[in-house]
Amino acid sequence: MMRFELDESRVVALASGVRREEFPDAVAAAEGFARAAWTTLTEPGDGLAGMLVGSLGAAGALKLILEMPSPQRLGTAVREAGVAPDEDLLEALGEALQRWTPRLSSTDVIHSLEQASRTGIQLLLPGDELWPSAIDDLGVHAPLALWWRGAPPALAALERSIALVGARASTGYGEHVAMDCAAGLVDRGFAIVSGAAYGIDGAVHRSALASGGRTVAFLAGGVDRFYPSGHDALLGRIAEVGAVLSELPCGAAPTKWRFLQRNRLIAASSNATVVLEAGWRSGSLNTAGHAAALGRPLGAVPGPVTSPTSTGCHRLIREYDAVCVTNAAEMAELAGAREQASFNLDAAPVEATGASSDARTSEQIRVLDALSMRSPRTVSDVARRAGLTTAAVISALGALDLEGGVSRREAGWLRGRH
Amino acid sequence: MMRFELDESRVVALASGVRREEFPDAVAAAEGFARAAWTTLTEPGDGLAGMLVGSLGAAGALKLILEMPSPQRLGTAVREAGVAPDEDLLEALGEALQRWTPRLSSTDVIHSLEQASRTGIQLLLPGDELWPSAIDDLGVHAPLALWWRGAPPALAALERSIALVGARASTGYGEHVAMDCAAGLVDRGFAIVSGAAYGIDGAVHRSALASGGRTVAFLAGGVDRFYPSGHDALLGRIAEVGAVLSELPCGAAPTKWRFLQRNRLIAASSNATVVLEAGWRSGSLNTAGHAAALGRPLGAVPGPVTSPTSTGCHRLIREYDAVCVTNAAEMAELAGAREQASFNLDAAPVEATGASSDARTSEQIRVLDALSMRSPRTVSDVARRAGLTTAAVISALGALDLEGGVSRREAGWLRGRH
Repeated sequence: MMRFELDESRVVALASGVRREEFPDAVAAAEGFARAAWTTLTEPGDGLAGMLVGSLGAAGALKLILEMPSPQRLGTAVREAGVAPDEDLLEALGEALQRWTPRLSSTDVIHSLEQASRTGIQLLLPGDELWPSAIDDLGVHAPLALWWRGAPPALAALERSIALVGARASTGYGEHVAMDCAAGLVDRGFAIVSGAAYGIDGAVHRSALASGGRTVAFLAGGVDRFYPSGHDALLGRIAEVGAVLSELPCGAAPTKWRFLQRNRLIAASSNATVVLEAGWRSGSLNTAGHAAALGRPLGAVPGPVTSPTSTGCHRLIREYDAVCVTNAAEMAELAGAREQASFNLDAAPVEATGASSDARTSEQIRVLDALSMRSPRTVSDVARRAGLTTAAVISALGALDLEGGVSRREAGWLRGRH
Repeated sequence: MMRFELDESRVVALASGVRREEFPDAVAAAEGFARAAWTTLTEPGDGLAGMLVGSLGAAGALKLILEMPSPQRLGTAVREAGVAPDEDLLEALGEALQRWTPRLSSTDVIHSLEQASRTGIQLLLPGDELWPSAIDDLGVHAPLALWWRGAPPALAALERSIALVGARASTGYGEHVAMDCAAGLVDRGFAIVSGAAYGIDGAVHRSALASGGRTVAFLAGGVDRFYPSGHDALLGRIAEVGAVLSELPCGAAPTKWRFLQRNRLIAASSNATVVLEAGWRSGSLNTAGHAAALGRPLGAVPGPVTSPTSTGCHRLIREYDAVCVTNAAEMAELAGAREQASFNLDAAPVEATGASSDARTSEQIRVLDALSMRSPRTVSDVARRAGLTTAAVISALGALDLEGGVSRREAGWLRGRH
């Protein structure tokens, strides 16, 4: 337990080295340092750590488990902070201590803070102006801190953002749709959130950058080492005008668990999540699951039913109530942006023979059916052929005459403008 | 009004010439003749004719409008039959008489019956054993009689049927899906209902025939003259093993109105309607609208969002709550056939790195993450790396050991079977 002995000035110096703004005082610096330390003690999404840090503060909780790592003492402290511990909680705290104590060493956090300081990585804390407050919806499962590099406006842009995710094994179709929709959403003022993976993720980041938009990538490992390595240059560009974030400290390798937990940050930080292309068991369905669990709007882009890379999207639409979205406008609508409806939905689809007849009544359709292009027909003849009253025929002919759909001859009426 | 003077024996002879079974008596024959006559007096879907024939009988209603075509007299007769006429009804009856009386001539019905008798076309009446009783759900808008040619078992097969419709301007993709799904549904014992149009309709009829299945086509004109003429051979084959039906008498030309009303018969006669491929304003959306109005299950097959011929399908899914269906099994399920679920939906999609891990717990995932393929690791080392208690690690290792996901060395545990 002695592995965490650090004096206050070193804690302040280390924590301050990775901040855009200075800590107001040493207490705040110690709290920041402790938050950073917690990211090394826990795996992402550790709800008990979230509860403990939330009720005791990061420094207070860290001090407690350093000084007296007993579930009873922790339980007492939690109860004093207003949370009533029951038997289950004490048992869970006991297990949590067993998880955390093997990692109780200052080495990892010092390394991470030093590495961050060297490479321009910063530590973002809850309550910071740039903290993406939407992820607080994760409750005790929210990240305890975020390590990040990039442009501050990109974080502010998360206020109006959409997560576009999809298969690594994407097709030309999926990439085309990804590029197209990301660009269209940037045009509509959205920041694009994704996971920087190969395939669809990469396509949406690239397209957002190419469109001059903001784009944000969440990684499953430390942001000092970009993953996947083949996206090193891409992530470098994202870090210039966008932002690259992770709840894991510098040096942490991505693992399967961390990918799954990373997905919850993508879903939580954005206004809506859209899966662009995904196989039956694609990891992007996990992101979709997080979005649904958070009550965030969820969309999926359909594709050919003959394409295995669209089966996941169709599954989301069929089984998980995902909205079928086919273009950037529909995605923007999903994310809550009100747009002028581009189509008149009240005009019932009544086409059967190909002619334009959007605003026509059934009487007008039947009168046109009964008219000839060449032989003029009288009103009573038209009425008999159309099975309508003469009054209805006269009224329909009047309307059709106005729009030029019929023309009058001495012998009667003709279809079309002559 | 004298144009309908026929003696009873002629009525019986004419009506009996187009029946599979003899009429039990002259009264029934007159009623059949009158039903046939009503199909010449009205345009499809004439609800007032349906109400009148329903309450007075076809012969009774025909006699009334031949003898005293006054709305008041009709209203009195209807009231005596149990329907309370209000002012609106009298006005509507007045208009209806103006629609019907110009067509009050026995020429059309005699021509249709003679032509039918010559060409093997039969008259199907409500209550007949082969009458597709599902279309009675159309209420007063149900057809007053159906003219048809084909094999009786095809009509019986409508009991378990599905309507597959779509754009005339279909693509290779749409036709491929149409052929594939129609064949799969035939394999599952479904009859295939469609409209015999070019494109998707033709593809589903052909595929059903090729699979040895039953298929039924509803036409918008008389069944003595196949439409479209390019499908003359196809409709001829449908009439051999399937059935071709219309509510319009022989000699009647298809019109736009009749196409729209024909669509209601396709939707009403089948257990479910699926739109396979459709542009933004495709006529098949009208069939979909009828299915939805009737409360029949409605499905749509998605396609590339880049394809204009799938926009109608996506619109149905987005705006009209159509179920996204991607194969014959899902269509069969839509139509109410219970099939063994082919997938375990409880297995949450948690893939992110491609390995198979369907049944693994989060602890097992994290333990695997923490193991190396080459360097054996102790339980406490794995616990620290995974952020888990040693008890959780031991439990997870035990389960993974059973399935061969890990192996034990003297120095500790390895990932994989060695």
